[in-house]
Amino acid sequence: MAEKITLRSEDFPKWYQDLVIQSRLADYSPVKGCMVIRPNGYAIWERIQRELDKRIQDKGVRNAYFPLFIPESFIKKEAEHVEGFAPQCAVVTYAGSKELEEKLIVRPTSETIINSMFAKWIQSYRDLPLLINQWANVVRWEMRTRLFLRTTEFLWQEGHTCHSTPEEAEDFALQMLDVYKEFSENVLAMPVIAGMKTESEKFAGALRTYCIEAMMQDTKALQAGTSHNLSTHFAEAFETKFLDQDGVHKSVHQTSWGVSTRLIGGVIMTHSDDKGLVIPPRLARDHVVIIPVGTKKPEAKEKVFAAADKLKEEIKFECFKAGLDYDIGVQVDKDDTKNPGWKFHEYELLGIPIRIEIGPRDLESNQAIMVRRDIGEKTVVQLPDLARVVGENLGRMQVDLLERAQEFRKKNTHVANTYEEFKSDLNSKGGFYEAAWCGDPAIETKVQEETKATIRCILLDDQKKPIMTDAPCMVTGKKGSNFKVIYARSY
Amino acid sequence: MAEKITLRSEDFPKWYQDLVIQSRLADYSPVKGCMVIRPNGYAIWERIQRELDKRIQDKGVRNAYFPLFIPESFIKKEAEHVEGFAPQCAVVTYAGSKELEEKLIVRPTSETIINSMFAKWIQSYRDLPLLINQWANVVRWEMRTRLFLRTTEFLWQEGHTCHSTPEEAEDFALQMLDVYKEFSENVLAMPVIAGMKTESEKFAGALRTYCIEAMMQDTKALQAGTSHNLSTHFAEAFETKFLDQDGVHKSVHQTSWGVSTRLIGGVIMTHSDDKGLVIPPRLARDHVVIIPVGTKKPEAKEKVFAAADKLKEEIKFECFKAGLDYDIGVQVDKDDTKNPGWKFHEYELLGIPIRIEIGPRDLESNQAIMVRRDIGEKTVVQLPDLARVVGENLGRMQVDLLERAQEFRKKNTHVANTYEEFKSDLNSKGGFYEAAWCGDPAIETKVQEETKATIRCILLDDQKKPIMTDAPCMVTGKKGSNFKVIYARSY
Repeated sequence: MAEKITLRSEDFPKWYQDLVIQSRLADYSPVKGCMVIRPNGYAIWERIQRELDKRIQDKGVRNAYFPLFIPESFIKKEAEHVEGFAPQCAVVTYAGSKELEEKLIVRPTSETIINSMFAKWIQSYRDLPLLINQWANVVRWEMRTRLFLRTTEFLWQEGHTCHSTPEEAEDFALQMLDVYKEFSENVLAMPVIAGMKTESEKFAGALRTYCIEAMMQDTKALQAGTSHNLSTHFAEAFETKFLDQDGVHKSVHQTSWGVSTRLIGGVIMTHSDDKGLVIPPRLARDHVVIIPVGTKKPEAKEKVFAAADKLKEEIKFECFKAGLDYDIGVQVDKDDTKNPGWKFHEYELLGIPIRIEIGPRDLESNQAIMVRRDIGEKTVVQLPDLARVVGENLGRMQVDLLERAQEFRKKNTHVANTYEEFKSDLNSKGGFYEAAWCGDPAIETKVQEETKATIRCILLDDQKKPIMTDAPCMVTGKKGSNFKVIYARSY
Repeated sequence: MAEKITLRSEDFPKWYQDLVIQSRLADYSPVKGCMVIRPNGYAIWERIQRELDKRIQDKGVRNAYFPLFIPESFIKKEAEHVEGFAPQCAVVTYAGSKELEEKLIVRPTSETIINSMFAKWIQSYRDLPLLINQWANVVRWEMRTRLFLRTTEFLWQEGHTCHSTPEEAEDFALQMLDVYKEFSENVLAMPVIAGMKTESEKFAGALRTYCIEAMMQDTKALQAGTSHNLSTHFAEAFETKFLDQDGVHKSVHQTSWGVSTRLIGGVIMTHSDDKGLVIPPRLARDHVVIIPVGTKKPEAKEKVFAAADKLKEEIKFECFKAGLDYDIGVQVDKDDTKNPGWKFHEYELLGIPIRIEIGPRDLESNQAIMVRRDIGEKTVVQLPDLARVVGENLGRMQVDLLERAQEFRKKNTHVANTYEEFKSDLNSKGGFYEAAWCGDPAIETKVQEETKATIRCILLDDQKKPIMTDAPCMVTGKKGSNFKVIYARSY
């Protein structure tokens, strides 16, 4: 049996770490700050990739692959970019037993190397828009790391697009923000607030950065994805130009956008509980585990195993018929060396969405017991109904998880009118705070230094423009034309 | 219009290079030896991944992800391994603006870092077999690089397994060799010889290496995949041990096996021709392109476009009905700025398996013209039959490509009885040579130095054991108990 998992109420970060290790999602590696993603964790990443990639392709974006290494001179071409990333770079100085003439940076992000290729590929307006995505590993040297949430190396997708006008680039950056929001909510069942980063929090080299922010169960914020309007910043540094219809050479307008293996951490901290993982059905590899019970006698065993195998096929067929757009994994655990109690705990730890218990007496009554991982209630279901009921519950669980997380966020989102009230509330109950901000970066810094809370994002209206408010700035009391923002402590 | 592609008969390597660049499969990057895989090339890699991953999962293997960086001391733990890989390593010496205490190697392969984790995860025989695969990038510093075939960074999968007995490890290495062979033939339509490497050609650290070898259209060999029986070499270096049923701690027996983006080069050099790419249907992103012709008049255009759109849906539906196990991509090219002749050339260059031409006069006769990319013949097909005929031809083309490549290899595989004959034949007609080899590495070296041909593999019998022959060694004339091998020049 696994070691005990720390309770969330006792120590949330410790609970998270215990859970990730004990459910075998990931492990620490001997390389400082780098993690190993174990099969249970990687299966979640593969499902994230599959679902998100479909959505990316639907936008007309195509996948490609660019080099891991970036010449040092490239990183230096965009002034803000090098300032932002240089302190985090891992540097290859020799290779093939020789010192390199030019140092190579292990990519922390690929705007520079990709622009060097875009500059070669793009000649005219006919080559635009150019919409590219890459699934890759990146490296950012971090002092403090946490499994999935912040690791020196991580896996992600980074989209890079070129457009002929600023409007089109802005529109595309916002379209991808929408994709991320829809994906987070419908696949990860993780509600997010889509907003805009402040100047001090934007991507190094961007004109502006949009983001999605989620609330974890400890009420802290997790930045779950970003979409940048890069304007012509990198295009100018790399001379990525096109001949426009008017005969003039112009710099392309670009976007970039990414989400990473950090999402796995977000999913865990949104849904899981003290017993173990809770995985939304759309991210699960195995959806149902059937556990035969009371099978000590050989005759009973034979009958129960046969019934379990039949159920497995029925569930798979029913879900296929119902047109679920993901494959349903159904396991029958026939392992004799473990007792049912051990198995119940184990599958709760692993977050299999539905458990079915079936024994000789159930067979006599033509029934089985179904337990949904998220609510834990035992339901007796007649065997002829079971496959259908399982399918319905998988669908319902996906929706319920999202709704429960939305409820939780609603309950923990407050309005902050004065700074004193904010500081006191933040310390006593955590959470997200809607507040007005005058726009002064010095105020942002002051709040961060005094409370460890940051502006997670500027809220956006229906036209995706920053929401302005006449309410007084929470800190300075300045009235008129302030930004409506979310303050919170974050990962 | 694209520049002209060099003819294969003129300069095969130049033809290959022209083709890869002009069909936009890949491009040279500003980083020495590293390539950019463009969307057309990456789409092929995604299909390779999808098809091969299914086969790997069917063996009970699960995907995971291990760190990009390997501490220098790890690489040094297995003596042969470090000797083989050290000269090719790229080394990170500082990171986060500080010099590292221990240098980090950018993984050239992951046996060492993975064993450091296996040693932690494996305790008892109950934890075995442990079957892991990872899809990742690796770096091997190369002096001479060629797009896809040999690049400093490449993408691959590397499988790593642990077993309790030597027999089980040997069996698993051979099972994966079978998977590679079946996959190469049925998906890539690339026939391969499955054999064993000689001592001097085996993987640095392995007990023995199995391989698949393909013949390119210039009759040179391409090593397309390898499967290694690692014995306990790495397990001993990393103390990857298990408590066996008899109560004794033992080292695990391991395998590793991999194929890479090199396969894309192999597919190109197996099937493509002087007009451009020929892509097996199972690897194609788009399978059919419908080109409206004679559409200058608006009425004609409207009718033809409508007919083309209808055909597209019919073809997709027909292929779905026929149960093809891959998605069929059908494009209708309605671009008015290009004439049909330009389009024919372009899609031949890109290797779309089937082209359909349809114009107003065809509509009157209720027909269209179908052209298969590999044979280039124009067939008139009645519209009601077209979808079915297209589906049939996609299936047939996949088979025909394999058979044609098998024929080609057969025609270019010879028997070498004496060294003189071999040298003369090799120079005049290239190809593969079946010959007897006494087993002396010095002979292998002599042949390589004198002819640039190497032993590609030792042939295997039905039991996957080296085939021994009484025929005299091609070089020394020694009789009795020689290995039956294939000599060839290679990539």
